[in-house]
Amino acid sequence: MSSIFTKIVNGEIPAYKVMEDEKHLAFLDVMPLVEGHTLVIPKKEVDLIFDLESEEFKDLFGFAQRVAKKVGAAISCKRVGLSVVGLEVPHAHIHLIPLQQIHDMDFSNDRLKLSPEAYQKIQEKIANA
Amino acid sequence: MSSIFTKIVNGEIPAYKVMEDEKHLAFLDVMPLVEGHTLVIPKKEVDLIFDLESEEFKDLFGFAQRVAKKVGAAISCKRVGLSVVGLEVPHAHIHLIPLQQIHDMDFSNDRLKLSPEAYQKIQEKIANA
Repeated sequence: MSSIFTKIVNGEIPAYKVMEDEKHLAFLDVMPLVEGHTLVIPKKEVDLIFDLESEEFKDLFGFAQRVAKKVGAAISCKRVGLSVVGLEVPHAHIHLIPLQQIHDMDFSNDRLKLSPEAYQKIQEKIANA
Repeated sequence: MSSIFTKIVNGEIPAYKVMEDEKHLAFLDVMPLVEGHTLVIPKKEVDLIFDLESEEFKDLFGFAQRVAKKVGAAISCKRVGLSVVGLEVPHAHIHLIPLQQIHDMDFSNDRLKLSPEAYQKIQEKIANA
């Protein structure tokens, strides 16, 4: 069965996409730790990120760098944090998290619940940054 | 003034190094969240990781991928997590953290204090993995 992220890639379920190229996609996490929390994935479905071929792995992070600069430009923060955890959705993904403090990156923190309008506004800010 | 990491690169202060090439260095975090917590840095001193040139950024993560595989092979864990925070030492660095659970990546957690002998044992396991 396809991962939930492959379904997003295929347009079977919607997402607030902020950047895309042939092999990669970035979209808002809908259970964000903070506003602007963004996920970056390879379109190719692979569970463990470190199992990507070296060139694929490097290209994915190159794409993530470009997304991170947009997130940092769009969302007021001290730094954009980056995390790969990999214990949840079995489709490799990178978290980009606008940080005010180190604690903002704690995955044990409560997640925000935003309205569709709020997500859309953030999506547009990042996509157009 | 040189960052503490540049001093490690230059051999002015010691570190438990696990992998090195011309442009990158990996060594144990001496305030580890868990055993095997490893830092990966570019030897070039730059504060914000996203300010690296695209090729430098990709090469740094390519190096980190190789280190992560060693960490995963040496240290018993479910996954190797990866994080960039950047609110502490002003020299870009990637954290590689062997995870049993997502909570192991919370930077608010207490840090371990290990003996020199314990660090050395971990260093050898990762370096030789």
